[in-house]
Amino acid sequence: MTLDEKIGQMTQVTLGVVSTPEDGVLDPAALTKAIAGYKVGSILNVTNHALTVEQWRQVQTKIQDEAKKTRLKIPVIYGLDGIHGQTYTLNATLFPQNVGMAATRDPELAAAITKVAAKELRASGVRWNFAPVLDCGRQPLWSRFPETYGEDVYIGKTMGATVIKAYEEEGLKNPTAVASCMKHYLAYSDSRTGKDRTPIYLPEIEMREYYLPQFREAVKAGASTLMVNSSEINGTPVHASKYLLTDVLRKELGFQGVIVTDWEDIIRLHTRHHVAATPRAAVVMAVNAGIDMSMVPGDFSFFDLLKEAVQKGEVPISRIDDAVRRILLLKAKVGLFDNPYPEDAAAANFGRPEYQTLALQAAHEAMTLLKNDDALLPFKAGTKLLVAGPSARSISALNGCWSYTWQGKDERWYPAGSKTIVDALRDKFGADNVTTTAVTDFSSPANYDTMALKTAAAATNVDAIVLCLGENAYAESPGNIADLALPDDQKALARAAAATGKPVIFVLTEGRPRFITDIAPLAKGILLAYWSGRKTAEAISDVLAGDYNPDGRLPYSYPRSMGEMVLYDRKPTEDIREIFNADMTMDGYRPLFPFGWGLSYTQFSYSDLHLSSPTLTGAGKMTVSITVKNTGSRDGKHTVELYTREHYASITPSTRRLRAFKKIFLKAGESQTVNFTIDRNDLAFVNAQLQTVTEPGDFDVYIGDQQAAFTYRSPTP
Amino acid sequence: MTLDEKIGQMTQVTLGVVSTPEDGVLDPAALTKAIAGYKVGSILNVTNHALTVEQWRQVQTKIQDEAKKTRLKIPVIYGLDGIHGQTYTLNATLFPQNVGMAATRDPELAAAITKVAAKELRASGVRWNFAPVLDCGRQPLWSRFPETYGEDVYIGKTMGATVIKAYEEEGLKNPTAVASCMKHYLAYSDSRTGKDRTPIYLPEIEMREYYLPQFREAVKAGASTLMVNSSEINGTPVHASKYLLTDVLRKELGFQGVIVTDWEDIIRLHTRHHVAATPRAAVVMAVNAGIDMSMVPGDFSFFDLLKEAVQKGEVPISRIDDAVRRILLLKAKVGLFDNPYPEDAAAANFGRPEYQTLALQAAHEAMTLLKNDDALLPFKAGTKLLVAGPSARSISALNGCWSYTWQGKDERWYPAGSKTIVDALRDKFGADNVTTTAVTDFSSPANYDTMALKTAAAATNVDAIVLCLGENAYAESPGNIADLALPDDQKALARAAAATGKPVIFVLTEGRPRFITDIAPLAKGILLAYWSGRKTAEAISDVLAGDYNPDGRLPYSYPRSMGEMVLYDRKPTEDIREIFNADMTMDGYRPLFPFGWGLSYTQFSYSDLHLSSPTLTGAGKMTVSITVKNTGSRDGKHTVELYTREHYASITPSTRRLRAFKKIFLKAGESQTVNFTIDRNDLAFVNAQLQTVTEPGDFDVYIGDQQAAFTYRSPTP
Repeated sequence: MTLDEKIGQMTQVTLGVVSTPEDGVLDPAALTKAIAGYKVGSILNVTNHALTVEQWRQVQTKIQDEAKKTRLKIPVIYGLDGIHGQTYTLNATLFPQNVGMAATRDPELAAAITKVAAKELRASGVRWNFAPVLDCGRQPLWSRFPETYGEDVYIGKTMGATVIKAYEEEGLKNPTAVASCMKHYLAYSDSRTGKDRTPIYLPEIEMREYYLPQFREAVKAGASTLMVNSSEINGTPVHASKYLLTDVLRKELGFQGVIVTDWEDIIRLHTRHHVAATPRAAVVMAVNAGIDMSMVPGDFSFFDLLKEAVQKGEVPISRIDDAVRRILLLKAKVGLFDNPYPEDAAAANFGRPEYQTLALQAAHEAMTLLKNDDALLPFKAGTKLLVAGPSARSISALNGCWSYTWQGKDERWYPAGSKTIVDALRDKFGADNVTTTAVTDFSSPANYDTMALKTAAAATNVDAIVLCLGENAYAESPGNIADLALPDDQKALARAAAATGKPVIFVLTEGRPRFITDIAPLAKGILLAYWSGRKTAEAISDVLAGDYNPDGRLPYSYPRSMGEMVLYDRKPTEDIREIFNADMTMDGYRPLFPFGWGLSYTQFSYSDLHLSSPTLTGAGKMTVSITVKNTGSRDGKHTVELYTREHYASITPSTRRLRAFKKIFLKAGESQTVNFTIDRNDLAFVNAQLQTVTEPGDFDVYIGDQQAAFTYRSPTP
Repeated sequence: MTLDEKIGQMTQVTLGVVSTPEDGVLDPAALTKAIAGYKVGSILNVTNHALTVEQWRQVQTKIQDEAKKTRLKIPVIYGLDGIHGQTYTLNATLFPQNVGMAATRDPELAAAITKVAAKELRASGVRWNFAPVLDCGRQPLWSRFPETYGEDVYIGKTMGATVIKAYEEEGLKNPTAVASCMKHYLAYSDSRTGKDRTPIYLPEIEMREYYLPQFREAVKAGASTLMVNSSEINGTPVHASKYLLTDVLRKELGFQGVIVTDWEDIIRLHTRHHVAATPRAAVVMAVNAGIDMSMVPGDFSFFDLLKEAVQKGEVPISRIDDAVRRILLLKAKVGLFDNPYPEDAAAANFGRPEYQTLALQAAHEAMTLLKNDDALLPFKAGTKLLVAGPSARSISALNGCWSYTWQGKDERWYPAGSKTIVDALRDKFGADNVTTTAVTDFSSPANYDTMALKTAAAATNVDAIVLCLGENAYAESPGNIADLALPDDQKALARAAAATGKPVIFVLTEGRPRFITDIAPLAKGILLAYWSGRKTAEAISDVLAGDYNPDGRLPYSYPRSMGEMVLYDRKPTEDIREIFNADMTMDGYRPLFPFGWGLSYTQFSYSDLHLSSPTLTGAGKMTVSITVKNTGSRDGKHTVELYTREHYASITPSTRRLRAFKKIFLKAGESQTVNFTIDRNDLAFVNAQLQTVTEPGDFDVYIGDQQAAFTYRSPTP
């Protein structure tokens, strides 16, 4: 390969560079310039909105036709952001965002929806998906929080590895698979202010405890590619960090796949981070740090600058060869050298009816019932409901980011038949029983005033008010906010609803937890619906009607206020040390609803927590069993969670850590014994020397309200 | 010395251990037990509230009498928290808290008030002050934020070193000096949630950039002692950190003095941090890490445990000898071996009239005028004022923490003649011209309702409303809050005042910036008074009347909301990267009022920024000069601040850093050329390898609205 051919492989441009202004229509001259001229090896993205399957197949075909004309005929690899289903194909099936999937506590379900996403991508001729997001959601202000699996490391790494296997496990040549992309390496989610792509300050011990394990598991699970955090950690942009990209990722984690940048992030080492004094220095820094492919994406500057850098000896050709080898191996792995064109076998996998069933199941299992005073829910058949609030008639507020457009806000592109909460409740309770005052505009205070007045007026002839609050769709920087407070207008609406004297249920459709601390007491019931995709409205109505017994559990600590952002796996030293004032308690952890919270219409009781031995030694294993009984009158699913605590350690030990979970189904009155096997790896933490260790000592195990003690001993030498 | 005698020297107990329940009255048997029995080398604190000078002198005398009876007759060293003046002697002179002193930008003034504190401590027979706080105030939620010099490192290290020299420079045997105590080593102020003594997560690069320099300068300035951060950094309690206490503090910074724990912090390694499995292990860990003296303080457990540990060989006797040597050297240094009793020469230095003048000057210079629309201020003589709000008739809300009691809230102990804002405004404008609706209770909503109603009713016959808002006194954990929002009742009061149609001035007496974002537009003027000590009310009235032209400048970025806690010395990567929504701007730094903000009744203009050379090379120096002119019609003081920015660096360079400041006085119409000398040390930062370096490159200098460029070059080899 010539140097140009090599560097071309490392260059990724956006579809707009090779397109006409019309969506889905390529510009032949621009395509030739990119592929024949600059030897571009990869293209990504859409121009404005999702295309049809057929449009995608045509686009892919034309791109590969162009690649066929080049000297080496190396196919182009196309990448898309299919974040909760295949975002960018019209009529593709959208599922809950990752944060909602984390609430399901159901990795098999996550695998199942992932297969659908993979099939619908592949049906569109695309073999590389920029998913899953593995960023740990410990900063709920972050505008990409909905894309995370929440605050817990164990859930994150379990879900992440499961999803990666689902994308890739059948062998990437199979027309039901796509290459996955672990992102965004590393700790992207931990921006200090929560604003997207702003600085992260993170001690390495914390980085290794909370942010790295998900990537370690993902590498083991076989992820083919990785995308890099656009931001900087402790002043060093990750795109320029040889330590993170080469020493940790390549050497320590053993990652062999392709490292791709995020959007325009190399040039920003010069323009934004100011660590490179020239654009070429930025390219040199990034490629030498370990970047294989640059999502340039709007021009060919990377190509020109890298070529110049190699010619000047600033980047060794060995580094180029290494990058190109990985890229070509990826293309081989996904079968592009066998057949670069959209596969007929793949096309049949688009839009199958069973995907809708799966979408409904996923939305069902995500629904998290936070409050249900006086067992007001479920509503009886024939209950007269007033449905109000800004998301009552919205589709976008049920789906969120990456839904047919990047921002997900434009409802023109959603599939016909997508239902609003009002639609679904009318289907369920009868059109005559459901009135609404909702307007779909989230932004205009005038609309809220109207809603509030109408809500009050309309409430006289109803039995209850369903108030649909939360966030409309957003993605990345446009989702930046200055505070997690729910907007005042929404709170005023809640007060107006409560003032009617009718019982009020809040339905929260939101990507991140917005504070409802002061209005929560006004609601008899609160259902957190997240952004749960195509079947969100149906799932909400099923839960409100009792046709589905909710089983979602909070994947994050629902916070009370900005000064109380303490997570469940806190240190005991978060507790208030001594004297306190009237507004404070001694407890450092007092979210509005704790991590793992979630009500059911039935009750589950725990008994007989049993350990196979009071001592765990060395590399041995221990079985922990518990009996769970459905003591209520309805069947239901339930997630059993196992937590541990070490009494003393070389650094302050966490108050508790989730180490295992299992989701079970119990009919009313039924019991089941659930077994967990744990070993020393499940008790490990990162010590001050940055090693992951299990220290000998006394431990507690917690499951539900049960507790047991054991001792871990080092192996005798 | 016997082992008991040595360990006794390392033991510090609180006054309560050797006292009767009556304040200031010792219990002879308990005193004998402590000093003869446990050989206790140090005592601290008060039982409940400040004592008279005479009581203190009696207490000290009796303690030293008891020490005289022991075999070695080693005097006891007594320590107190004189935080903004001598806290614990009745009628001592209290000055602005450190955050207010930082607003003065006047190190000489800080030195002068420090000398008063030293003299009033020494007059009380006490030779060791637990001050200054050197913690950098970068987390305004922190309940000890008022004790900091604000967010900037340069102000912090300049003020800190100046104050330490003032405490100690005349030679500690001089009866006008006391040993100082740098505290709280290290990064105590950086609790993630702002709650006192809760965990800190801090990458070392940030620790060295923002938190260590103040201690480095303080060691150079000759600080005799150091107190340790009660919390933990990255999971390691600082009291157990050999790295921080020995490697960094002793070896790198070269500190030779005494390291004392904070309150009860050794045993808490076991009970709270859970890094020591037994109480003795906690003692072993702390002493081996480098602790010289344990503020036990409520019992003698430390003595017993340490003795046992030494006998078992868990703590080497060399470590004990090292600690005791430092403690004895401290006692020698402060002259206790010459004369351990309260000195007559010191007594005369208590309560001199000129201290009140100095207190007024300090309060004057702290006053920071944040807003003055339509030049409403200063009020003309004879203006009719309504003075309302919770701090209008408060003394404690003008003084804050560590004011005659720990919490500063109990007004019984304040000196006779202490004035409220209402008092001072009546003195100034005439009793007939000042009406008030204020109640002194900060906590009862009912009172606010009354205030709001009365404010509305009373406003008809006044020209303006002075609304006194903010915080009542608090210290440490009792000052914990969940959000910086100003309480809703105070905001409702502001709205009631504004609704009268009369012009409203806010006077903010507060230890930390409470959000006024939504009510600030209702005020024509805003005067930030901090907690400025004995003469706060007089300083406020002088500013409102124009008898003092305000010159305070914000020592912190007055934040807008919890999600916008970005400080002035931010990285450019805090700026919002791309698309934004309606509530956001691209600017990552948009506080309500920026760092350095502060209005005057006159105007200052800048011109002729001149650098002595466009190039600074190696260890050379550069002179930066600027002409400042008072273009208004009033005389005034003004602080000229010099900032720099490096264009590119090996880590993302800060947008700007304060590198020098000078406070000048200019009569109306007068000009002055101000010169600064800077060298490469003023341009340094901590790089990714944790070294403090100055990297060659292009720089900008900013003074006021002027800007100039220069290049720094490494010395040619």
